[in-house]
Amino acid sequence: MKDKSSNVVWHANAVTRADREQRNGHRSLVLWFTGLSASGKSTLANAVEEELHRLGCNTFVLDGDNVRHGLCSDLGFSLEDREENLRRIGETAKLMLEAGVLVLTAFISPMRKDRERVRSLFPHGDFLEIFCDASLDVCESRDPKGLYRRARAGEIGEFTGISSPYEAPVNPELSCDTGCDSVEASVAKVLELLRERGVIAE
Amino acid sequence: MKDKSSNVVWHANAVTRADREQRNGHRSLVLWFTGLSASGKSTLANAVEEELHRLGCNTFVLDGDNVRHGLCSDLGFSLEDREENLRRIGETAKLMLEAGVLVLTAFISPMRKDRERVRSLFPHGDFLEIFCDASLDVCESRDPKGLYRRARAGEIGEFTGISSPYEAPVNPELSCDTGCDSVEASVAKVLELLRERGVIAE
Repeated sequence: MKDKSSNVVWHANAVTRADREQRNGHRSLVLWFTGLSASGKSTLANAVEEELHRLGCNTFVLDGDNVRHGLCSDLGFSLEDREENLRRIGETAKLMLEAGVLVLTAFISPMRKDRERVRSLFPHGDFLEIFCDASLDVCESRDPKGLYRRARAGEIGEFTGISSPYEAPVNPELSCDTGCDSVEASVAKVLELLRERGVIAE
Repeated sequence: MKDKSSNVVWHANAVTRADREQRNGHRSLVLWFTGLSASGKSTLANAVEEELHRLGCNTFVLDGDNVRHGLCSDLGFSLEDREENLRRIGETAKLMLEAGVLVLTAFISPMRKDRERVRSLFPHGDFLEIFCDASLDVCESRDPKGLYRRARAGEIGEFTGISSPYEAPVNPELSCDTGCDSVEASVAKVLELLRERGVIAE
């Protein structure tokens, strides 16, 4: 008869976050981009990712495109659903952090308490909040998807900056003037932060 | 005056799954381990991960420990909540697949239709179902957490194999006899499958 308890003798050394970071050659981290619609969060996050990938980093961008149709497809835009949306994104970012990924997230995330709740999921220093600081005037003049126009016309309710508040970060790890500065300049600021933090080499 | 539309000139080449796979030196994939409680899913998934990490792969294990307390902490064990639990795990695995990770999941996932729904999220060949096939008798004799004893005593309701069905896979990509074979033998079978599929080198 075969040994029914043969499984018990195997002692797998669970692969840890530190093991994965060593494999990747850099530590994992969450860069949380916040700002108004059309403030340039996705543009900046994707541009930073491109640079980090070029430097050999293991990266991923979580944004509305890949979250709203999948993990959070059951959620709408009520206050409660928006909170749950950000909670799940935070938890997913945490799993990816454990997986060794340098995660970039691009969500309006307008409420300070929701962002603070997400921050509280992470060890100190693993969550960096980056404020994409563009004025409402600039964002509305860009309006790439016509959302501000529709919000002004009353066709979209609870639109951040128009009919729903945006609470600017008080002490973000970084602010980028994504209303005036070029994307290149903002990318350089984010990379400088990552060098200062020892995430990428000098 | 600075150029308000300066963001528009940047054309970031979005980093793709293929770019990440090239960086990692292997394609990404989901290995979905299914089987009764105590059938050896987590043990096998962790042992396979250890080998893959040793081979230089970018890996992560999703299991009850890292999902139930975080992403799915709002869910209980009703039929509806179990379905939603597996749906979210599937969507998270899909995000990790995009991120270039070789994802291993270890969940009982007893219902065929729930597993098929998860499978349908993935491109053909990216989701491999691995049946941890140990008899109820063996699993119950192991009972590392005393769950079967408590289920038999009526202290846990809807317990898979006792008071709730387990639907064995019909055409899994691999079956491992985790009731009789050693963990080493099962690990070898999984690695052979990955070599056949071209995920790791011969």
